[in-house]
Amino acid sequence: MTPAPVEVAKNIKNVVEKVNNKKVERIMDSNNIMVQGFKGSAVAAGIKKDKSLDLSLIFSEKETAVAGVFTANKVKAAPIHLSIEHIKNKKARAIIANSGNANACTGDEGMNHASTMTKLAAEKLGVNPEDVLVGSTGVIGTPLNIKTISNAIPELVNGLTPEGISEAAKGIMTTDSFPKTSSFIGSIDNKDYKITGIAKGAGMIMPNMATMLCFIMTDLKIDADKLQEALSLTVKTSFNRITVDGDTSTNDMVLVMANGMAENRDLNPEDYETFIKGLNKVMTDLSIMIVKDGEGATKTVCIAVKGATSKKDADEAVRTVANSSLVKTAFYGQDPNWGRVMAALGRADITMKEELVSIWIDDVQIVKQGLGMGPDYEKKAAKKMQDKEFSLVIDLNQGEHEDLIITSDLTHDYININADYRS
Amino acid sequence: MTPAPVEVAKNIKNVVEKVNNKKVERIMDSNNIMVQGFKGSAVAAGIKKDKSLDLSLIFSEKETAVAGVFTANKVKAAPIHLSIEHIKNKKARAIIANSGNANACTGDEGMNHASTMTKLAAEKLGVNPEDVLVGSTGVIGTPLNIKTISNAIPELVNGLTPEGISEAAKGIMTTDSFPKTSSFIGSIDNKDYKITGIAKGAGMIMPNMATMLCFIMTDLKIDADKLQEALSLTVKTSFNRITVDGDTSTNDMVLVMANGMAENRDLNPEDYETFIKGLNKVMTDLSIMIVKDGEGATKTVCIAVKGATSKKDADEAVRTVANSSLVKTAFYGQDPNWGRVMAALGRADITMKEELVSIWIDDVQIVKQGLGMGPDYEKKAAKKMQDKEFSLVIDLNQGEHEDLIITSDLTHDYININADYRS
Repeated sequence: MTPAPVEVAKNIKNVVEKVNNKKVERIMDSNNIMVQGFKGSAVAAGIKKDKSLDLSLIFSEKETAVAGVFTANKVKAAPIHLSIEHIKNKKARAIIANSGNANACTGDEGMNHASTMTKLAAEKLGVNPEDVLVGSTGVIGTPLNIKTISNAIPELVNGLTPEGISEAAKGIMTTDSFPKTSSFIGSIDNKDYKITGIAKGAGMIMPNMATMLCFIMTDLKIDADKLQEALSLTVKTSFNRITVDGDTSTNDMVLVMANGMAENRDLNPEDYETFIKGLNKVMTDLSIMIVKDGEGATKTVCIAVKGATSKKDADEAVRTVANSSLVKTAFYGQDPNWGRVMAALGRADITMKEELVSIWIDDVQIVKQGLGMGPDYEKKAAKKMQDKEFSLVIDLNQGEHEDLIITSDLTHDYININADYRS
Repeated sequence: MTPAPVEVAKNIKNVVEKVNNKKVERIMDSNNIMVQGFKGSAVAAGIKKDKSLDLSLIFSEKETAVAGVFTANKVKAAPIHLSIEHIKNKKARAIIANSGNANACTGDEGMNHASTMTKLAAEKLGVNPEDVLVGSTGVIGTPLNIKTISNAIPELVNGLTPEGISEAAKGIMTTDSFPKTSSFIGSIDNKDYKITGIAKGAGMIMPNMATMLCFIMTDLKIDADKLQEALSLTVKTSFNRITVDGDTSTNDMVLVMANGMAENRDLNPEDYETFIKGLNKVMTDLSIMIVKDGEGATKTVCIAVKGATSKKDADEAVRTVANSSLVKTAFYGQDPNWGRVMAALGRADITMKEELVSIWIDDVQIVKQGLGMGPDYEKKAAKKMQDKEFSLVIDLNQGEHEDLIITSDLTHDYININADYRS
């Protein structure tokens, strides 16, 4: 018998619990998330019908190195196209972002609107328009009300404060139920530096590029190419390991700005490694918050596959199970219905043998060599599934490769939210 | 401007409406579905908790040519393995099938149970066990209660009648809300022959191999190899063109038995073509009934993609859109939310240009060259979506290839059914 991969399960559970134990209030404590030299602000410009905050701004006192990762979707929103252009010079000063309208599938007019947003913000901030990045999130295919945005920009700029980063986190929310922030403090040569990220998620969440918008600030002094390398690497182990509904967005972007105000020495390999760990910590926290806040989600489930013949197989297996509607409704029903897991594995494009598969819920084994362990074990597993988070661990017993993904359940509220979204 | 592919939309709508207009009573009229030389029967053996019919038998007075198509899932139920063995000699006499338990992921014991089912039925019928095929549908991973089945077989065999085919259609139902049958009458040299199919569907429905169980009877005299060729061809244009939830089953099978009692001449090419048309008609009817009866479905939607650069692209595009949870909840919400369609197309592995895409709901165009036509058109489209069936037509304007798929919406009842299935 293969020993239960309890280690894997425990590790994942720890991460989820760590995030859950943080109170939203604490997460949002401005003192925890402020980064020197950065200011934030948000206003209710009137893009959203409910008059909540819908326009956010992040500004750095000093020029920053900048890096970005953008949606792999072939349909890209106007702000994606423009921000890709604007980070080419590898430097930035500000990010302006609206919620309530994605400015996607809006053609030349949409490009003009995105451009106007950066120009007006730049003018008021006294910086180059090329150093302002732009993001949008919300409904696709409706022209942006650029007038209401233009009118709000002076107030937005005037409202900038160091504490305002938490306001900016609120201004990018759509169907999110809480704002998402995470911070990390590192140290180089006894000098502290900080990384803070804010994100919005909720729907249309799947790799590649999970979050719709994520903005990260750090006062670390780091070369833009190194920053891009670190970001690209970290996206793979954080945002690209989560899925809510298998749909990817036209607007996904992660941006990192580094303003160098920590005045650290040039990074040595060890410093760089620590920075990557910190970035990964911030982005993993935000990823898990996004899944936890997945549209209608009641469960946060870590699915791990081990014993695959290749990394590709492990990835394919874990994604197929995580995106199965039948598996996700079984999570919601707290039913250790492993037959659905087997059926999903069976249609995944992987090397597998039914009679080699073992399955666990947390540390309760429910399938051994392709056969159910029986009702007693299933009852124990069902009890574990009453928790808000649990692990599903699959051992294919075919090879040495493993992978994991964090996902949510498929619920009545997912249907409520998405059947009524525009009405 | 590209002309609206109204023809495509109309054709699909006709098929759906034709099926909808048939009353279930008429579909189930035994006189319509009887085929000479075939008898059917069903009993409540006690496999299902609710004491409804759960064990069906189809029997041919004469030896039949037989053909089969089986699930592409790597996890195959015991009855699949056994039936694949039993059709190798290309002849059959009977099919025994139970609902309520899939006999999947049940190991050697499951193989023994499937074998026992064929042996006991064969013994009582006075035929070879190798000429009895077996199917199962229901929960995966629970051992079959073979005793209750064994006890019921005598009554099952004694109950065989020509009218009993409609009972057999009921005995294979699981979460189906109505039994599914369809017939076709063809003629060769002024001699009529008949094709009748019965099927069960509802959940875990996606190509390849959509229906969980479909049994077809015909009195046509046809060579077994020709029969297999016709079946394999027709599955591609019927069952493999539907999807409910993107999950494929471990138990899917389509079997055709041809007992030759129509005593027709050897088929000439024209006769063969007519037979294929008839088979396609029966299987398409059953496919559409399966989608219409998809778990929790309130809409039957035909999605057509044209203008793709290859058949593969057309297939990939139509499947990605059809399996998008966000698109399916928009169907449920009667919301022509074409942004979700664009986002799904954008993540499909196809050649596409956002600015070339046009989209219609029935004959109402809502997207032209990648841009929305505006609220007036969307209102008209929303009105079309109030119908129980409508078409979504996408023109990629990239090439000459097209494909279509028939699917259902994602609803509260899908969640109800699947979150509670085993409890």
